[in-house]
Amino acid sequence: MPVITVEAMPMTTDAKRELVATLTHDASRIMQVPETSIYVFIRENPFDDIGVAGKLLSDIKKENASKK
Amino acid sequence: MPVITVEAMPMTTDAKRELVATLTHDASRIMQVPETSIYVFIRENPFDDIGVAGKLLSDIKKENASKK
Amino acid sequence: MPVITVEAMPMTTDAKRELVATLTHDASRIMQVPETSIYVFIRENPFDDIGVAGKLLSDIKKENASKK
Amino acid sequence: MPVITVEAMPMTTDAKRELVATLTHDASRIMQVPETSIYVFIRENPFDDIGVAGKLLSDIKKENASKK
Amino acid sequence: MPVITVEAMPMTTDAKRELVATLTHDASRIMQVPETSIYVFIRENPFDDIGVAGKLLSDIKKENASKK
Amino acid sequence: MPVITVEAMPMTTDAKRELVATLTHDASRIMQVPETSIYVFIRENPFDDIGVAGKLLSDIKKENASKK
Repeated sequence: MPVITVEAMPMTTDAKRELVATLTHDASRIMQVPETSIYVFIRENPFDDIGVAGKLLSDIKKENASKK
Repeated sequence: MPVITVEAMPMTTDAKRELVATLTHDASRIMQVPETSIYVFIRENPFDDIGVAGKLLSDIKKENASKK
Repeated sequence: MPVITVEAMPMTTDAKRELVATLTHDASRIMQVPETSIYVFIRENPFDDIGVAGKLLSDIKKENASKK
Repeated sequence: MPVITVEAMPMTTDAKRELVATLTHDASRIMQVPETSIYVFIRENPFDDIGVAGKLLSDIKKENASKK
Repeated sequence: MPVITVEAMPMTTDAKRELVATLTHDASRIMQVPETSIYVFIRENPFDDIGVAGKLLSDIKKENASKK
Repeated sequence: MPVITVEAMPMTTDAKRELVATLTHDASRIMQVPETSIYVFIRENPFDDIGVAGKLLSDIKKENASKK
């Protein structure tokens, strides 16, 4: 049963593969449930759809890029 | 209120239409609230973003396809 | 997979039992996945924690009760 | 912490920008936590993936358009 | 339709009342939808159920209290 | 950002502590983001509020107990 949802930024498929395998293994061991019962959902949120400290993450990234 | 969220795989619009109508009807009857108060959100998760038993669903599908 | 979440108000266990059985049965049929793969989460939200049209549902209920 | 999620319809980036700034400001003031600790996720749900009163929002929009 | 969910810490009912009214008002204005269509769910997470930077918020609060 | 939500069954505080530390550590490493930016929410769902294969988990547990 446990269901793990990860609200994330865009990620590579390899990173998703490793994240699913690792978080499932961790949760199975700690929560003492079989891996086969665990679902993981990865939410790739576009930078425009994420707000941090009142700003869009896309705007924060543009600001940081312009400071370099 | 209530709000029903369905974490799903890719689906046809016809299936979505039937799912929304049926789940709304069920919930309205069982929870004794008007259908007009019920929202349904269907989350079409790409196979790369779903983990089952520690693997990406996209990888599981590739493995199954190669066994055929 | 799929996972169905129902944001609800306080409900009896019988209503939960029927809701889980019915939503699972219908989702399985429409989405063509086995019932054994479907998880349902019922979220019993206290009336104080639900807002409708800008008001707490607990306040709306008090207002309606005082009108009777 | 806190984390605010907005299940929405398609929106312009300007509207997202204002929504993130405003909701973060409100929550920070009311919940007495720093803006820097608040995350906001905006979920742009396609009209096909939203059900209202048992119908897809895309169908409701088509019906309304044909009545004009 | 929009549905706003606030993952929060324990809050007073007055704070919930203000949060629901304010978030609904602002979302209605910015997203140009009627307040009557907006649902808000406030999730009062116990401090034991919130992790920040790898620690339970309950542990962080104990640490801070012991430093005073 | 990221935010990890774990839909779980009742758990001990020690298990929650270990789950938060481990998931945060692994997500930080794999997603290459600082641990300080990661929030984890653990949702302790009562057995009555979880449906598996169309049945309440509380009923499944009673059935299993009666078979012993």
